Amino acid sequence: MSQDDLSVLPLSGFRDFLPAEQAARSWLIGQALEVYRQFGYFPIETPALERNEIFSGQYGEEGEKLRYRFEDHGKRQVGMRYDLTVPFARYIARFVPSGEVQLPFRRSQVAPVWRADSPQNGRYREFYQCDADLAGSSDPSADAEIVLMAHSLLGRLGCQFRVRVSHRGVADAFLRSLEIAPEAAKRVLIILDKMDKVDRSGIRGMLLEDAGLSAEQTDHLLDAVTNGAEGQAPPLPLDEAGQKAWEELRAILVLAREAAGADAPIVTDLSVIRGLSYYTGLVVETTVAGAEQFGSILGGGRYDHAVGAFIGRDIPAVGVSLGVDRCLAALHSLNLVPEAGARADAAVLAFPECQEAGFALAARLRQAGASVVTYPGSGKLGEMLGFATRTACYAVIVGSEEVASGRYQVKELDTRQQSTQSEEELVAALLGR
Amino acid sequence: MSQDDLSVLPLSGFRDFLPAEQAARSWLIGQALEVYRQFGYFPIETPALERNEIFSGQYGEEGEKLRYRFEDHGKRQVGMRYDLTVPFARYIARFVPSGEVQLPFRRSQVAPVWRADSPQNGRYREFYQCDADLAGSSDPSADAEIVLMAHSLLGRLGCQFRVRVSHRGVADAFLRSLEIAPEAAKRVLIILDKMDKVDRSGIRGMLLEDAGLSAEQTDHLLDAVTNGAEGQAPPLPLDEAGQKAWEELRAILVLAREAAGADAPIVTDLSVIRGLSYYTGLVVETTVAGAEQFGSILGGGRYDHAVGAFIGRDIPAVGVSLGVDRCLAALHSLNLVPEAGARADAAVLAFPECQEAGFALAARLRQAGASVVTYPGSGKLGEMLGFATRTACYAVIVGSEEVASGRYQVKELDTRQQSTQSEEELVAALLGR
Repeated sequence: MSQDDLSVLPLSGFRDFLPAEQAARSWLIGQALEVYRQFGYFPIETPALERNEIFSGQYGEEGEKLRYRFEDHGKRQVGMRYDLTVPFARYIARFVPSGEVQLPFRRSQVAPVWRADSPQNGRYREFYQCDADLAGSSDPSADAEIVLMAHSLLGRLGCQFRVRVSHRGVADAFLRSLEIAPEAAKRVLIILDKMDKVDRSGIRGMLLEDAGLSAEQTDHLLDAVTNGAEGQAPPLPLDEAGQKAWEELRAILVLAREAAGADAPIVTDLSVIRGLSYYTGLVVETTVAGAEQFGSILGGGRYDHAVGAFIGRDIPAVGVSLGVDRCLAALHSLNLVPEAGARADAAVLAFPECQEAGFALAARLRQAGASVVTYPGSGKLGEMLGFATRTACYAVIVGSEEVASGRYQVKELDTRQQSTQSEEELVAALLGR
Repeated sequence: MSQDDLSVLPLSGFRDFLPAEQAARSWLIGQALEVYRQFGYFPIETPALERNEIFSGQYGEEGEKLRYRFEDHGKRQVGMRYDLTVPFARYIARFVPSGEVQLPFRRSQVAPVWRADSPQNGRYREFYQCDADLAGSSDPSADAEIVLMAHSLLGRLGCQFRVRVSHRGVADAFLRSLEIAPEAAKRVLIILDKMDKVDRSGIRGMLLEDAGLSAEQTDHLLDAVTNGAEGQAPPLPLDEAGQKAWEELRAILVLAREAAGADAPIVTDLSVIRGLSYYTGLVVETTVAGAEQFGSILGGGRYDHAVGAFIGRDIPAVGVSLGVDRCLAALHSLNLVPEAGARADAAVLAFPECQEAGFALAARLRQAGASVVTYPGSGKLGEMLGFATRTACYAVIVGSEEVASGRYQVKELDTRQQSTQSEEELVAALLGR
């Protein structure tokens, strides 16, 4: 590729989307928004650019390096949106005191965020987040709702899945119960977080070597995490805070399973940690059967300290986030992304003497509810049929004979089946697709 | 407002949207996308950030000043998206040679763009463009399609409107016919562009004084522009190019009117110029009755030189663009923006002893197709009803009596009408809204 060709590409880590790709993305985002809407999480929007102070110090040292920031025309330090949580915290701090938003408050937000990450890692520098959060309640039913929402959304996508649920308070209590020192605890959580990718012996090795646990601590911990989830009693003796978290987790599960149905694939999995240190309670991940390599395509949890950051007090919050790119990749690998979406129902191809008739027919078909493209002007039949194949499901050929008889040549472009149809029959065929 | 309060506001010229505002915006954008889809203009997407070279020199001196640009982490000069046309030109230059896009090509794109404009002028620094363009055809039916699309979209919005159509080639020919010097011509077009805001005598004064036309030139021009539109013959003698443009305009109108219906509000208005110098043929503006002060809420035209900019040859193109903010303001002023959109059908309010029953009821109502919020946990009835009023249309009260009898207290929150309903009746009421 020459220098010239490069100049028409997007920046590295950024993407153009062709209509068919965009249709798949819109479909997926539409599914999420529909589920969010069913649960009363309506969309809001915040700006792509914010004052730099809003973001600074919010994402740790690593995140700070990845933020796009610059000086604007008024010499203000500004930053591009890095996630949707920090802007939501600002939004809450703006609108809760003014009374325009009252807690408890549910909202969804779907928007691109920007991170100057390394594209070599398969990461994009511009990608969509698709979040739903409930701020202002610490009731376990709020957590259960998030679990249920994850279940509902995955249920719409046609895949086999599991919603894996845990509680950070339980994980922390396990570590305390095993007398694992606080400095090791962080490393232990990071290692446990890998349990869906690394086998038990690999995890065991890391716990021994990287985290410095004893063999006894390691085995107790792995047993507790692996087998301890389904019992009524915790697999290790827990202190008061741990007991409270355990009971909370059980209450969440009871509510979510009752609503989702007893056989719903909602499971406890005490190895679920989620990297982000801001989670304070419930943590949720999901696994799609046959697409495990894509990791958790939908995750979330409770984070009680972040949303109130600008308001000067904790505001409990719980939420879920769909990984749009990851989920699409998983669904594509399973052939579960619906086709269509970027093709019209019909392409009207008119011969030169029938331009007006073709244009008017297209308009009438649209009024009947179909999406219809016309070949603009006229061309050779082969060329026009090529256009139709790219852009539509049916080709409708309009020549003087067709205009005189009111019966059109109709070609179904996938099957190449051909027929002659009246306008009424044509409408029925197009709308019946 | 103290310094502290300021820190929770967006940057000047940027906006947060509350759920009800966002619902109105989504509704309007949805209307546009639906019309675009009917005509086979499917969405694409391009990045928010592009290499700076893509944009530089494309928007004139004034535009250049308003662009957000900076140096990224890799020391590349980058710019934020300033419009959707230049990225579309890059997209064409990328995908047409590779065969991934074939001409003629229709696409829509809805995305924010960023301009460091002065917020004092009521301009936003972040706003959505909502465009549909057809690239690769100079056939008049492509132009007529754009006119028809403008007509269809406004027709969905419930307002009285006119689609005003002209042709830059006709306006240019008028000026040549009146022997107006090229250097004055530009100023004349800028003045004519104001004819929907300034009365005839004001325009006359400007043409005489600012553009330096003679009284005779001025009167002929104003007569031609004002009265000349509806005749079969042009109101001034035109040269060959002018005659061709005139005939093209008439062909466009014949096609569009035939498809839209003879009484459709599609009119020629030779004063329509549209500021942007890139238009080369058809120009379209729209006026909403009773909301004229908002100007043209939907406009477009033919621009044959811009889309091919990166491919090194002209690619004819014609398109339409909805002004989302302006259109919403106009519709709000006419009370034509539908309510709802950011309220759930029902809020389930459960007393402490009925938490599980309430949670499960909400899930069943959602499965039946309703959108349902729950009050997370329980609270005082007044508090819960306040929550319900903010978030839903009906409140459904779940106490132990209701659970025992299977009949719920239901309050319609707008009318404050109260009734007792079985779950089946409740579903019917919610879905019947």
